[in-house]
Amino acid sequence: MKQIRALTFSVFAALLSALAVATAQTPSTHQEFASAIIQKAMRENRAIKILERIVSVGPRLSGSPEAAAAVELTRQMMQDFGFEKVHLEPVQVPRWVRGPVEKALIVNSRTLGTVPLAITALGGSGATPTGGLTAEVVEVHSLAEVRELGSRLQGKIVFFNRPMDPTDLETFRAYGRAVDQRVRGPAVAARAGAVAALVRSVTTRHDNVPHTGVTIFAKDERVVPAAAVSLQGADLLSQLLKEEGSVRVHLELSCSTLTDVPSANVVGQITGRELPREIVLLAAHLDSWDVGQGAHDDGAGCAHVIEALRLLKELGLRPKRTVRAVLFTNEENGSRGARAYPRAPQRRGEVHVAAIESDRGGFAPRGFTVGGDSTVLNALQRWAPLLAPLGADHFTLGGGGADISPLGRNGTLTLGLKVECARYFDVHHSANDVLPAVNERELEMGAAALAILAYRLAEEGIPAARK
Amino acid sequence: MKQIRALTFSVFAALLSALAVATAQTPSTHQEFASAIIQKAMRENRAIKILERIVSVGPRLSGSPEAAAAVELTRQMMQDFGFEKVHLEPVQVPRWVRGPVEKALIVNSRTLGTVPLAITALGGSGATPTGGLTAEVVEVHSLAEVRELGSRLQGKIVFFNRPMDPTDLETFRAYGRAVDQRVRGPAVAARAGAVAALVRSVTTRHDNVPHTGVTIFAKDERVVPAAAVSLQGADLLSQLLKEEGSVRVHLELSCSTLTDVPSANVVGQITGRELPREIVLLAAHLDSWDVGQGAHDDGAGCAHVIEALRLLKELGLRPKRTVRAVLFTNEENGSRGARAYPRAPQRRGEVHVAAIESDRGGFAPRGFTVGGDSTVLNALQRWAPLLAPLGADHFTLGGGGADISPLGRNGTLTLGLKVECARYFDVHHSANDVLPAVNERELEMGAAALAILAYRLAEEGIPAARK
Repeated sequence: MKQIRALTFSVFAALLSALAVATAQTPSTHQEFASAIIQKAMRENRAIKILERIVSVGPRLSGSPEAAAAVELTRQMMQDFGFEKVHLEPVQVPRWVRGPVEKALIVNSRTLGTVPLAITALGGSGATPTGGLTAEVVEVHSLAEVRELGSRLQGKIVFFNRPMDPTDLETFRAYGRAVDQRVRGPAVAARAGAVAALVRSVTTRHDNVPHTGVTIFAKDERVVPAAAVSLQGADLLSQLLKEEGSVRVHLELSCSTLTDVPSANVVGQITGRELPREIVLLAAHLDSWDVGQGAHDDGAGCAHVIEALRLLKELGLRPKRTVRAVLFTNEENGSRGARAYPRAPQRRGEVHVAAIESDRGGFAPRGFTVGGDSTVLNALQRWAPLLAPLGADHFTLGGGGADISPLGRNGTLTLGLKVECARYFDVHHSANDVLPAVNERELEMGAAALAILAYRLAEEGIPAARK
Repeated sequence: MKQIRALTFSVFAALLSALAVATAQTPSTHQEFASAIIQKAMRENRAIKILERIVSVGPRLSGSPEAAAAVELTRQMMQDFGFEKVHLEPVQVPRWVRGPVEKALIVNSRTLGTVPLAITALGGSGATPTGGLTAEVVEVHSLAEVRELGSRLQGKIVFFNRPMDPTDLETFRAYGRAVDQRVRGPAVAARAGAVAALVRSVTTRHDNVPHTGVTIFAKDERVVPAAAVSLQGADLLSQLLKEEGSVRVHLELSCSTLTDVPSANVVGQITGRELPREIVLLAAHLDSWDVGQGAHDDGAGCAHVIEALRLLKELGLRPKRTVRAVLFTNEENGSRGARAYPRAPQRRGEVHVAAIESDRGGFAPRGFTVGGDSTVLNALQRWAPLLAPLGADHFTLGGGGADISPLGRNGTLTLGLKVECARYFDVHHSANDVLPAVNERELEMGAAALAILAYRLAEEGIPAARK
C-alpha cells in the first residue's frame, strides 16, 4: 500500500477507472498501475505530438544548427512537463557536412550509355577532387575479399555488394551481418589503394532510395569518397559488371569534415523517493542522419523516453529510485554523448541500476532485450503479464543499445525496447524515415511499455530470481 | 522419413540450406520444413506481387465488374501456379451501388455557417429523395438509447457517435464493441421514425476520412439513407450540438440496390496424398468495399492464401490431407459465398478437418486464434516453435473468421491468422486501404505462417492433447 500513499487525487480517479478494467483478471496493485499507464497513454496519444515537435526542427545531424535546436527544444519540453533536475551535459561533437554535389554516373555502358545511380554520401566520407573522379568499378562481397585483392584495387572504385540476408527475420541481426561493408569497407578499400568506395545500401527495401550511415577511418587511414547506392542501382551495377565486364563510374562528392562543435546530452528525471541516487535510465538519441527526418531513428526513441517519464509524472508515480530520461547526442557518428555521460561530474555518487534504450524505431512493441544472463531474464519474465496487453511481454537475451553500452560495461543492467522489426530497415537512414512512417498508436504503446518497466525497476530494483 | 520421400530434388537443396540455419536449434524434420518454407518465402517475396495484381483490377465490391475480374484473375493465377482442381463455385450476390452524389452539410451553424462533412454512404444504405433531405440531428451513443427515445426521433437524423475504445489494444474487440451502431443503427433509427442516420466511422485514426461498411435492414424494415462520418466531422457535429443546441444537416445520397448478380467462390488445392477428401482449408475473401483498394481487407488475405499454397506446391510438399485455398465472394455485405460453400455439391464426401482464415490485414503475423477449447489450444501450442521465427507463435482462443464460421458450426476446427493489429482500423473500409499501406515482408511472413500451420494440420490432423 506504500505506493498508494504517493498518489495524487487525480491518479486515484484514473486508478478507479483502471480498476474497472482490471477486475476481469484478479487485480493486483502492479496490474492496476500498469493498466493506469496504458489507459492514460492510449487516451492521450502524446508521444506522436512530441515526435512531431522534434522532427519539426529538421534533420538533426551532429553539430548542425538543427541538432542544437533539438537539444534546446527537448530541454524546454522536459521542463514544461515538470521533470526534475532538467539540465544539459556538454559534449563536443564532430561536424561532418554533406556537400551540395552528390553525383554518380555509369559512363561506359555499351548497352545503356550514361546511367545515373541513386547515391548518398556516407557520413565521414571524403570529397572527390572538384569535377569528380572516374574509375573502374570492382565488385566485392566482404572486407576479406578486399584484403585478398590487395594492390589489384589500386586506382579502382571498390563496390561492396553483399546484401542483407532477406531470410533472416531478425532484421537487426541481418543488418549487423552486412553493415561492416559500410562502416569499415571504404577504409579497408583505401588501404588497398582504391580511390573511392560504393556500398550497397543496408536495407530491406528494394527501391531506388539510398541509405546513408557512418563510415569510419582510423587516424592513419586515407579518407576516400564513399557513398551508399540504392538497391536498384547496386543491382544494375552488378548486372552490368557481369554482362559487360568493364564498368566505369564517375563520382563527385563535395562533403567535408569541419571542426568539432559544442552539443549536449539532455537530462531530466523523476527523483526517487527513497533512493534518489539509484538510477533507472531511459535512453534514446537526439541526433539523426541528415536525410529524411530521423522520425524512427531515433525521434521515436526520444518520444518514447519523454512520454514514458511524462506518463509517470502525471500519474503522480514517484518510485523508490530515480527514473531518468537521457537524450544522447551524437549516437550516429561518434557516440560522444554515450561516452561523456558516465564521466560527467554529475555521476559522482550515483549508481545506475538499469538502463533501457529505445533505438529500434516507433513500431508496435514486442518486448525487451536483456543484456544480462538467463537468471536476470527469468526474473524479469515475472513482469511479462504487466506488458502483455501491449504485446510487449517477450524478454530475450541481447544488447541494450549503443548509448547505454558504456554503462553496461560498468555493471548496469542494460535493456533494449524490442519492436516489430520487419519495416525498420526499409526506412532507416534514408529519405523515407519521416513522420508519416510512424503510427501514433504503435508509438504510444512503446512509451507505455517503457514506463511500466521503468516504474517496476525503479520500485523494486532488479528482481531476484525465483527460488 | 516418409515426408522426405515426397520431396523433389530442388527441395532437397532448399532443405540443405535450411538445415544450416536450423542446426543451431537441434534440427527436427518439422523445423526443417518450416525453415524451408520461411527461406523460400522471404527470398522470393511473391505475396506482394499477387496482391499488386489483385488490387490492379480496382475495388471489388460484390456484383461489380471489378469483382468479376478478380474472380477470373485469381482462378487463372491458381491454375498458373499449378494448383489442382481449380474451379469456380457459383454464388448469386447482392449488388449495391454507390451513387454519384454523396453530400452532407451542416446548414444552420450560427458560428460556422454552412459546413461540409466528410461522409461515405454505408453499404446497403437507401438514397435520399433527389435534391436531398434536411433534418435536425440527434446524437445518440447506443441502439438502446434510440429505442428509449422512440418517437422523439420522428423526422430526425440520428447520429451514432460512440467511439471505438482507444484504450482497448485488442482493436478487433474494440471494433466489435462499436460496430453495432453501423450495422444495425440505421435500421433501429428507421423503426423509431428517423429519416436518415449518420454513424461515427469505426476507426482508430483521427482524421477526415470516412470509413464505410455494411448496414443491415431486415425485410420488414424501412431502408433509410445512412452514411459514415469521419472522426473530425463527427467531433464537429457533436461539439456544435453541445454549443448551439440545434444542428440541421442536409444529406444527399444517390446509392441504390440493384438485382442480384452471379459471382463465385474461387477454389484450388493440393490434393492430399493419403486422405484426399479430408480438407485443411485456407480462407480469405475476394470482395472488398468500393473505396480504397481493399489492399488489407482482404486483398492481403487472398495473397496470403494463394502464396501459402504456392509455397507448399513449389517445395513439392504434398501432405497426407488436402490443403485447399478458397477465396470467398461477398464477405462484406451478405456472406453469400460463406453460406454457399458448405452446401455446394462438391462438398459431398468431404470432411473439413480445419479451416484457417486470414481477414485481419497484411501486417506482421503474431499467431492464431483458435475456435476450439483450451485442450485444442494447448495441443496446437506444440507447433509454436515452428512459427516462432516469424513471431507468429501466439495461440489464443477466439473466432476464426466470418467466412469459415459456417464450417465451424458443422464441427470444423476454425482458426484465424492474428497479425499486429494497431494499424488495421486506421485504413479498414476507407480510401486509405491501398497497396502502399501493406509492407511486402510483413505480408510474406503471414503467408509463411499460414503455409507452416496448414502443412502440419494436413500432415498430422488436429494434434492430440499431451498426456
